[in-house]
Amino acid sequence: MARQASELFEEFKELTASEFFRRNKQMLGFSGKIRSLTMVFHELITNSLDATEEAGILPEITIDLKRVDKDHYILKHRDNGPGIPEDFITKVFCTMFAGSKFRNIQSRGQQGIGCSGCVLLSQMTTGKPAKIVSGYKENGELKGVEMTFKMDVKKNQGLILEKRPVEVESTGVHIELHFKDVSYSLSEQGAYEYIRRTMIANPHAKITFRDPTGHKYILDRATEEIPPLPKEVLPHPRGVTADDLIFMAKHTDRRRFRSLLTTSLSRMSNKKVDEVEEITGIDLNKRPKDMKWEEAEKIVETFSSMDFMAPPTSGLIPIGKNQVEKGMREILNPEFAAANTRKPTTYRGGVSFIIEAGISYGGESGRIVGDQKRAEIMRFANRVPLTFDQGSCAITEALKSIDWKRYGIRDLDNAPITVFVNIVSTNVPYLSTGKQSIAPEPEILHEVRQATMKIARSLQKYIRAKKAAKEEELRSKIFETYVPVILKEAAILAGKDVPEYDHILSKVTRRPKIVGENNVE
Amino acid sequence: MARQASELFEEFKELTASEFFRRNKQMLGFSGKIRSLTMVFHELITNSLDATEEAGILPEITIDLKRVDKDHYILKHRDNGPGIPEDFITKVFCTMFAGSKFRNIQSRGQQGIGCSGCVLLSQMTTGKPAKIVSGYKENGELKGVEMTFKMDVKKNQGLILEKRPVEVESTGVHIELHFKDVSYSLSEQGAYEYIRRTMIANPHAKITFRDPTGHKYILDRATEEIPPLPKEVLPHPRGVTADDLIFMAKHTDRRRFRSLLTTSLSRMSNKKVDEVEEITGIDLNKRPKDMKWEEAEKIVETFSSMDFMAPPTSGLIPIGKNQVEKGMREILNPEFAAANTRKPTTYRGGVSFIIEAGISYGGESGRIVGDQKRAEIMRFANRVPLTFDQGSCAITEALKSIDWKRYGIRDLDNAPITVFVNIVSTNVPYLSTGKQSIAPEPEILHEVRQATMKIARSLQKYIRAKKAAKEEELRSKIFETYVPVILKEAAILAGKDVPEYDHILSKVTRRPKIVGENNVE
Repeated sequence: MARQASELFEEFKELTASEFFRRNKQMLGFSGKIRSLTMVFHELITNSLDATEEAGILPEITIDLKRVDKDHYILKHRDNGPGIPEDFITKVFCTMFAGSKFRNIQSRGQQGIGCSGCVLLSQMTTGKPAKIVSGYKENGELKGVEMTFKMDVKKNQGLILEKRPVEVESTGVHIELHFKDVSYSLSEQGAYEYIRRTMIANPHAKITFRDPTGHKYILDRATEEIPPLPKEVLPHPRGVTADDLIFMAKHTDRRRFRSLLTTSLSRMSNKKVDEVEEITGIDLNKRPKDMKWEEAEKIVETFSSMDFMAPPTSGLIPIGKNQVEKGMREILNPEFAAANTRKPTTYRGGVSFIIEAGISYGGESGRIVGDQKRAEIMRFANRVPLTFDQGSCAITEALKSIDWKRYGIRDLDNAPITVFVNIVSTNVPYLSTGKQSIAPEPEILHEVRQATMKIARSLQKYIRAKKAAKEEELRSKIFETYVPVILKEAAILAGKDVPEYDHILSKVTRRPKIVGENNVE
Repeated sequence: MARQASELFEEFKELTASEFFRRNKQMLGFSGKIRSLTMVFHELITNSLDATEEAGILPEITIDLKRVDKDHYILKHRDNGPGIPEDFITKVFCTMFAGSKFRNIQSRGQQGIGCSGCVLLSQMTTGKPAKIVSGYKENGELKGVEMTFKMDVKKNQGLILEKRPVEVESTGVHIELHFKDVSYSLSEQGAYEYIRRTMIANPHAKITFRDPTGHKYILDRATEEIPPLPKEVLPHPRGVTADDLIFMAKHTDRRRFRSLLTTSLSRMSNKKVDEVEEITGIDLNKRPKDMKWEEAEKIVETFSSMDFMAPPTSGLIPIGKNQVEKGMREILNPEFAAANTRKPTTYRGGVSFIIEAGISYGGESGRIVGDQKRAEIMRFANRVPLTFDQGSCAITEALKSIDWKRYGIRDLDNAPITVFVNIVSTNVPYLSTGKQSIAPEPEILHEVRQATMKIARSLQKYIRAKKAAKEEELRSKIFETYVPVILKEAAILAGKDVPEYDHILSKVTRRPKIVGENNVE
């Protein structure tokens, strides 16, 4: 029986973003008990690190995870950041797609889902509200507010249950969330490993973590240097589409399209604008609203044929090769460590990025699997560990495409090495809302390979030298063991005294004289 | 210089869903030129098949893809569905997270992103509006409207540019969209292969496709049988969480919690409600709004310890093993084909699903790579081809975990076989918003393995029989070649005539007498 359209559309409705993600929480990365808890840690730590750095404060985070029952935990997360003003608390924690990181800037969080996702998960698994104490400065004055709230899932906004001013000693956020159906684990995907890896990439942070057994880990900072703040970067002419120009034109208050270009794009001088005008024949003095799509297309096409300076890279703050090496040595205690930070480059024509790589060998490098150690890959984006979806990540793809045999690693499944890769960008091309793997842009794959192969060569030299030294030692040992015996017996046969030989022996073995029984002294 | 919280929050803002996906279009599956076009075909075809089936119509879809310039296409997509009422057109095509498929029902589309995503992509790459003609019935009367519209990305809603009533001959939707930066490809990820696979899973559909070279493909239906309409299925007690119960309680107009349970959950009788009341001690006659979280938790816990009938499966309509086999034979022309539809079962305790599998061998099975054929895996969810993200999909994981050597396939990279797997469910657990790979729920992995191994055994029998027949033939050939020669020479030596031997020979070779030169007749 053919049904009419009008009947079918009776059930038509619109969901809010929060309703949508409530039905599809796996898209936030909350799939599975271990992964869900690790993702919560990820979102809250990320938020705290970003907030403290933006405010120019050395980050100090305190995390307390208490196990109430099987799969039931209370998480208390505290930071020393600038805090959240009272009016914004529910926006940060109860509204999907809200945030301040939609500018073109290198930041850990990028989508405005994170913190709200944690509150949603807490609520869905326990029904309990979230509790927060926020200390913040307003007009130089220190204020404090304590709030208990829930997310109104239907409306994608907060529902304040209780609110009162409180005395606080300093600025910062202290949030308390209950969770069920999550699991704390010491495995590679677990929350503890996440903290450990965060420390390698953020040596200026201090994290105190009390785990469910009551054990307190103090991961102290290795440097007092706050990394410089990444600057907002204007989009590069090579990185904009016609749609971007029309969108900018629609929402600008600039009077002329020409000044929209010079103020909204990097490397765009009035001289360059003249050049564009000459090539396209379009009058760029006109009002932005009068710019037509076909004209915007022509302009973008012209951009791609013109020469521009590379995008400014002051916006990008890598960890730095010394810091990476320092971090690896601190946490992994290796025999060998080397790191490499590449020069900035771009993908898709105009988005800047930098790749950093590090390799450590021996010590606590690698991950124990059964009775051997396999190579461990640690991936980071803007200093944030990417724990999951390793298989689909561009970094993994690039690393696996390297011919490790050439560098002395016969089999990655049996090699005591840790490979560290960090990508830094204003716009990290994640593959999905879970933000755990990176899209295989060709330039990114290339840079990861180059960065890693360079330090792999250093590793190869080290392994060779180590092997040669071993052989040298073996050879020396043979001499030291047998020469004295031979001389002694020869001397007996010749009826002579055993001659002095230490100095000759040590010349041959290149080892110092051994003062001992054979030394004629 | 530590910045104040109030400064930092100056830049705080909220994005609408459309703004969010505009900045992150790769999360809709629009990453790369080939994939983007295939995803557009996927969304529009999916929408048409769902709409026609819901209205009880045999689907007929006409697609015209015209190449205007390099990477620049005009797509015209027409179906014979029930059409879209005038007031809903922009909601369907311009509003993310809007739709009618949020009920608990087996359907191809599930998220309310699809069609709007296509309009967004069209607009972002060309700036052109979308054009639609919709024929639909209202109160028995056939109406037609022609509309030109754009998406207001900031507001997640439509902007109608032109609208006028038109004469239409029948119900249906005809939409015209321009795209740039997309690419039509004949590869495994391309739009044509998508259509081909859709036909295997939907033998009742007819698709006419005119490709950019002007070549017209008519993929006719193989059956006049419209598959029965999947019924909406109430959630099963084993599949609800405490959060679900509280959410239902909050939004119901039922007066008592007890009747909320019996009307909103499947397999929930008043007797079962009494049982729950007895075990938990909670009064279920109270008003839904009075139900507390802890009580909902207790109820859910009790559910998991009670016996319920398995979820009703009338909601699930698999393709059917005969239809799968028929579809494979039609499209792939194989030597051998077998299919298997498993019984319904559940994942996560209460979500029903059915797995169907098919294997074809020889003919056009497998995919040519270089100079050999490798096994081709065709994955489907609710009859919709899953083209991308093959590596992270549960179906792939399950198929790769099978020991194919046991079934006569030594190496999947060198086997002329096609494996077809379809999962049917009211709630397919996709891994991400791109909807191209399935989460590795243990029950799903198990069912895919079981379904496939069963028909792999049939394949093995076939391969063995084929091999035996080959050997038999070789053996027969040897006899047929040499016996006559031997007899002839022997006869000469013995000075006798060549005896008649055909009947004996054909007994030995089990092949019919060959009337020929050796036949003494």
